[in-house]
Amino acid sequence: MQHHTTKTGSVGIVIPQYFQHDDTFGLVSGQTLDGFTLAYETYGELNADKSNALLICHALSGNHHVAGSHSPTDPKPGWWDNFVGPGKAINTDHFFVVCSNNLGGCHGSTGPSTVNLKTSLPYGPDFPIVTVEDWVHSQAQLADYLGIDTWAAIVGGSIGGMQVLQWSISYPNRLKKAVMIASAPKISAQNIAFNEVARQAILRDPGFNEGHFYSGDHYPRQGLTLARMLGHITYLSDDVMRLKFGRELKEGKLNFDFSAEFQVESYLRYQGETFSDHFDANTYLLMTKALDYFDPAAQYQDALSTAIQHVEANFLLIAFTSDWRFSPERSEEIVKALIEKNKRVTYAKIDAAQGHDSFLMDITRYKKLLQAFLA
Amino acid sequence: MQHHTTKTGSVGIVIPQYFQHDDTFGLVSGQTLDGFTLAYETYGELNADKSNALLICHALSGNHHVAGSHSPTDPKPGWWDNFVGPGKAINTDHFFVVCSNNLGGCHGSTGPSTVNLKTSLPYGPDFPIVTVEDWVHSQAQLADYLGIDTWAAIVGGSIGGMQVLQWSISYPNRLKKAVMIASAPKISAQNIAFNEVARQAILRDPGFNEGHFYSGDHYPRQGLTLARMLGHITYLSDDVMRLKFGRELKEGKLNFDFSAEFQVESYLRYQGETFSDHFDANTYLLMTKALDYFDPAAQYQDALSTAIQHVEANFLLIAFTSDWRFSPERSEEIVKALIEKNKRVTYAKIDAAQGHDSFLMDITRYKKLLQAFLA
Repeated sequence: MQHHTTKTGSVGIVIPQYFQHDDTFGLVSGQTLDGFTLAYETYGELNADKSNALLICHALSGNHHVAGSHSPTDPKPGWWDNFVGPGKAINTDHFFVVCSNNLGGCHGSTGPSTVNLKTSLPYGPDFPIVTVEDWVHSQAQLADYLGIDTWAAIVGGSIGGMQVLQWSISYPNRLKKAVMIASAPKISAQNIAFNEVARQAILRDPGFNEGHFYSGDHYPRQGLTLARMLGHITYLSDDVMRLKFGRELKEGKLNFDFSAEFQVESYLRYQGETFSDHFDANTYLLMTKALDYFDPAAQYQDALSTAIQHVEANFLLIAFTSDWRFSPERSEEIVKALIEKNKRVTYAKIDAAQGHDSFLMDITRYKKLLQAFLA
Repeated sequence: MQHHTTKTGSVGIVIPQYFQHDDTFGLVSGQTLDGFTLAYETYGELNADKSNALLICHALSGNHHVAGSHSPTDPKPGWWDNFVGPGKAINTDHFFVVCSNNLGGCHGSTGPSTVNLKTSLPYGPDFPIVTVEDWVHSQAQLADYLGIDTWAAIVGGSIGGMQVLQWSISYPNRLKKAVMIASAPKISAQNIAFNEVARQAILRDPGFNEGHFYSGDHYPRQGLTLARMLGHITYLSDDVMRLKFGRELKEGKLNFDFSAEFQVESYLRYQGETFSDHFDANTYLLMTKALDYFDPAAQYQDALSTAIQHVEANFLLIAFTSDWRFSPERSEEIVKALIEKNKRVTYAKIDAAQGHDSFLMDITRYKKLLQAFLA
């Protein structure tokens, strides 16, 4: 819900909303949820024929707070505020933008830290494993509730891009444009391996206590810190780390101890520790699993072109040269499959030094391309 | 010491030896050791004029047991048995091969798990931080003891290659040939970052107990397991992981839980856990620090060509195309510096899919090149 825009280019103060789905909701795993809540935000106005709705799907550690601020003194805007707002690449003067926190999340949607009404305790490790497909089905329920039959566009980066692809497969006639940024049709063994180290860091932390850590006695802070430190390395490129930190020493000299001596060490520790203060470890585990599992071609003998044969959306794929976590080659696999089936697709490989994180950056060519495609 | 070779191409049964340095030994950090022991092995015979000695410097988790077996029922030979033996690339019919366990190690040389005679307790966290330079000076003491004035060659991969470079700088007239395999003049911010995550995994493990874990009550097993899992990912290439594991499932189906579902997960857990059973966590910390600190150009305003201006050895540098931890570009920096100072240098970039681990692999072109250079 958008209130007065307090400055040019910002959606201003926004208030999160909550969608309640009361029916039993079946998951890919075979498990069910007795209903769920999705926290979401919207920016811009839905037009009369409800044809200007644009869904943003968030990435691993993201949430529904994409743009604007929650209060006049909020120190930080939403995670994609540089892209979403009046006159911006995702122009809220034209679009009614929606983003929901993924099911299993820890920012207001039903997830492991939510109290299970059956037990009056947080779900914890009993929260079922959710998949990209489950997310898309839950978002479709939200679309129904909002009266949005067809999205003008669905946009997402990283695992957000996977949700875009899944939407186009599961609901081919419910989106007109599909924008996948720095994404992949499935992750590689190396990606799974990094996710597994992150998971093991959490699972092996004594504070994890088999996922029961909501009583306040313990928390897998160390494990979550390590998981995030590791993740962070893979979001950045070798080049940008060289430019940003090089071998700079914090105190200008070696200390010959295990303190944070190099700038990069201190940066990573800070990133990891800050993250561990506000993210739920069970949610982190779930999100990495959803990432590992995503593989729409698997049920078609690994033929991606068969998996996407019924898609109707007009696709834009964007990849970044220095992204080694979701390299351009992975986007190109999707482009190839779409071309093979005569689908509409535009592809751009953008020169950018910032690795996977480029998808959040102010890169002119990238922004202009996105804006032009959506216009 | 070499005994009867029990089969063609093997150095046979070998017995580790111990060199005792009794004097005070000053370290780069400014700290001192009241003497030290180096565990080492030798293969082949030292000739009369002691001109056929070849030193192998081991990598992060390696040790002095390079070739042969410790007993007739030893299940595994030394770590480079495929390269070192009669008629092999490093031919023990011609060379007297020496390798010592690095100072700070956990395989017989003085290190954190050694009992400090002053306290009658293991050094633990009180063992000083050692550097590549310290290792080289300790190896020079061993050379003196063995009566080896000049090495015919010094050979090493990864951080072993850094020791080779340091030898050529610290003792320019004590080696004729220098072979650096899959190495670098210093590691990058990304490398330091990976090392830091590995260190934090150990340091934050409650079992670490600030480095005091020799009483048998606890051990940072989880931290060391994580450190090794992570290390392992960086030793392999994305390609080889794809070829070796792809997205193969252990049981052919998803379990929707946190068991090891993908083959790559189960492989990594096994690697990490096996390693944690036989490697000392304090040593692991020290080795990663030595790697981070190595930067011979630092004291010459980052001019590597100045750092190597007095080297006399004939250099061979070998790098592997898929090695993203020590990429060919890093070796080429050294080649460039050597050429700039008109030093003798041969460089080969070998096509290999196995990433950093290629340096241990039976790659024909690589072996032939090494053999020819040493001949």
